Amino acid sequence: MADGYASHFGINNIPYGVASSSKRSSPQCATRIGDEVIFLAELAEHDAFKAISASLSSIFRESTLNSFAALSKDTQRQVRSAIQEAYKNNLHKDYSESIKDVSLHVPVHVGDFTDYSASANHVLNAGEAIMGVRSFPPAFKKYPVGYAGRSSSIVVSGTPVTRPLGQFIEDYTAPEKKVIFGPCRSLDYEMEISAVIGKPVEPNTILHAKDADEHIFGLVLLNDWSARDIQGLEMNPLGPINGKNFMTSVSPWIVTLDALAPFAVPAQERMEPVATYLDDPASIVYNIALEGQVIRNGAQTTTCKVNFDTMYWTFRHMLAHHTIGGCNLRTGDLVACGTVSGQQDHEHGCLLELTKNGRVPTKLSDGSELRFLEDGDEVRYIGVSGDGVGFGACVGSVKAAPKI
Amino acid sequence: MADGYASHFGINNIPYGVASSSKRSSPQCATRIGDEVIFLAELAEHDAFKAISASLSSIFRESTLNSFAALSKDTQRQVRSAIQEAYKNNLHKDYSESIKDVSLHVPVHVGDFTDYSASANHVLNAGEAIMGVRSFPPAFKKYPVGYAGRSSSIVVSGTPVTRPLGQFIEDYTAPEKKVIFGPCRSLDYEMEISAVIGKPVEPNTILHAKDADEHIFGLVLLNDWSARDIQGLEMNPLGPINGKNFMTSVSPWIVTLDALAPFAVPAQERMEPVATYLDDPASIVYNIALEGQVIRNGAQTTTCKVNFDTMYWTFRHMLAHHTIGGCNLRTGDLVACGTVSGQQDHEHGCLLELTKNGRVPTKLSDGSELRFLEDGDEVRYIGVSGDGVGFGACVGSVKAAPKI
Repeated sequence: MADGYASHFGINNIPYGVASSSKRSSPQCATRIGDEVIFLAELAEHDAFKAISASLSSIFRESTLNSFAALSKDTQRQVRSAIQEAYKNNLHKDYSESIKDVSLHVPVHVGDFTDYSASANHVLNAGEAIMGVRSFPPAFKKYPVGYAGRSSSIVVSGTPVTRPLGQFIEDYTAPEKKVIFGPCRSLDYEMEISAVIGKPVEPNTILHAKDADEHIFGLVLLNDWSARDIQGLEMNPLGPINGKNFMTSVSPWIVTLDALAPFAVPAQERMEPVATYLDDPASIVYNIALEGQVIRNGAQTTTCKVNFDTMYWTFRHMLAHHTIGGCNLRTGDLVACGTVSGQQDHEHGCLLELTKNGRVPTKLSDGSELRFLEDGDEVRYIGVSGDGVGFGACVGSVKAAPKI
Repeated sequence: MADGYASHFGINNIPYGVASSSKRSSPQCATRIGDEVIFLAELAEHDAFKAISASLSSIFRESTLNSFAALSKDTQRQVRSAIQEAYKNNLHKDYSESIKDVSLHVPVHVGDFTDYSASANHVLNAGEAIMGVRSFPPAFKKYPVGYAGRSSSIVVSGTPVTRPLGQFIEDYTAPEKKVIFGPCRSLDYEMEISAVIGKPVEPNTILHAKDADEHIFGLVLLNDWSARDIQGLEMNPLGPINGKNFMTSVSPWIVTLDALAPFAVPAQERMEPVATYLDDPASIVYNIALEGQVIRNGAQTTTCKVNFDTMYWTFRHMLAHHTIGGCNLRTGDLVACGTVSGQQDHEHGCLLELTKNGRVPTKLSDGSELRFLEDGDEVRYIGVSGDGVGFGACVGSVKAAPKI
């Protein structure tokens, strides 16, 4: 059965992923149009592609998109046009398989994964849910605040998430804050979008926000699964680690900035003046309609509908701030934006916000209450801009914790 | 000129590194005995090595030690013995060059770098220097607390560190906490030791601390250069990022646990009972004498002398806690212990502690005052266990920030 997202992948999209199949057992670079997955190493043997670069076919035969992502934007644009042309001329047929017959893989080798907290709404909502106070962290208005994530546990959509074991405070309302060890009791999702780095940023480069799009190959959906109880105990003062590093899911198709360009909208105005390297009066976000669903006992409930245009800090700001101290970015690195959240309850991109850290349950279609995720729950996270340009979905089901 | 650390590299050490030279231009695996660097791919063509494994020579020809580190401890021990035997029989001569003629490289491909804060003294001293309070973070007695570091900016000893640019509070004592952008004013070092992962830990494995040595290939010195002002503004609530990610230096030679075994000493007793996965009554640390030096205007000053046996949490605890939530560890990953500090002033492994966050300068041999590092300062960090077993040094000089 096809996955139902054919409409996200019109000829204006041309996303990039890594696919394999029974016919093509080695994972290799691919694109998707409708429900057809086109294997690009084979397509790139055509003259139109050889004229762009003789090495395209071998680059597309690699098991990650890193080499292609590192090419110049100009070359990437020529390839995009050539794929569109080939499709119109029906040249792709011999190199295509149905989406239902292929396996998709993490599309890039991720050297490092950084996760920002770039939504003002998320920061205020999460603070209120945990501490009862709506206030910004000290640096929030100065620059995007973030933390380093874990790259070894990045997986592709469809991989189940195992409920993590860990230590946490059993009951915050009890007089004694007893720490216990066991399966996480407050497993959450975080609906995010991540930039995938294309052209690297060398160490000790001053990159201005206004120039940063040059280094973004494209965007993916990212679910930063979070164990709120484990995270709550550990994060003072060094930030989250075990509460986050057990798994992070990404959607399989990288949607390029060229495909998203028609959906660019101006970013919010800055609340305060910013440092020169962040100054970008024309900074943009993208119109991407995001939807979160929880499927429990076969019944699907939409838990969130929010647009990516609600973000306060943009990827341009994030890249500029990431590198201002001298830190390099490598092709394939992920720079994610943190939970996307709006102001309304139905716009909350994680359960911490939606259920006020589990205190205020929401009703699911099967009649049960949702405070945090239960074993067997499936989370489906979908993003679409329109006019044939979308991300498909990033999904994962919850498996029980290992026995201790 | 040789580097003066020949005595660290006796026949009981046999550390592993990656070296190149004008004669051997491709970086490849090597060991060091005295001042001789022995290129192992060539040595492993001898029958004694082929008898252990036919693929050793090609494994040693690789530009990182990851493949060798992933081999079984049993195989690694046989190789160690075979190298010692070859050296005694003078078989190594044709494959050796003087340490002064080789370049050394980061010895492993580091997928992820995690940094713990495992010294109780450091935590208390740093808290006192910043907030005037000697107290443990909420989770400190329950498990090792840490954060994810940056792998893209890990460099080998000898690489200069460029003073990072960033935003920070200009004057904490002023009534208005004005945030400014510019070169870091409180550049620091952190003298640490890092475990290098050998055998991987698969996702969702319960690894008990008592079994964790199996996954440690060896140890290196690590200098976690830190920008205290940048870190101070950014770390609430997500922890350090730009204050740390601009560069991390490692020593070039990985000293194996087999070489360190004679220097194992019992770890401190736990202050509180710990969860089952951390329970390890026989947990060990190592007797490693660490020394920090600052060289300014050609004059060398010892700023710290501390032993690694002062650590509260051990690498066994760190690996067990790292993986308990399901996070995997890959061969070559670094798991570092955080600043090693004792209770006395001369045992403080970073300037934050030694100079009370810059408020109480210490006198250097050239007559100047040391509060934090100045451009041109060199930091030299040395570790030695004794009886021909040591790490050599991890060094770096401070370069001026880029012009803005």
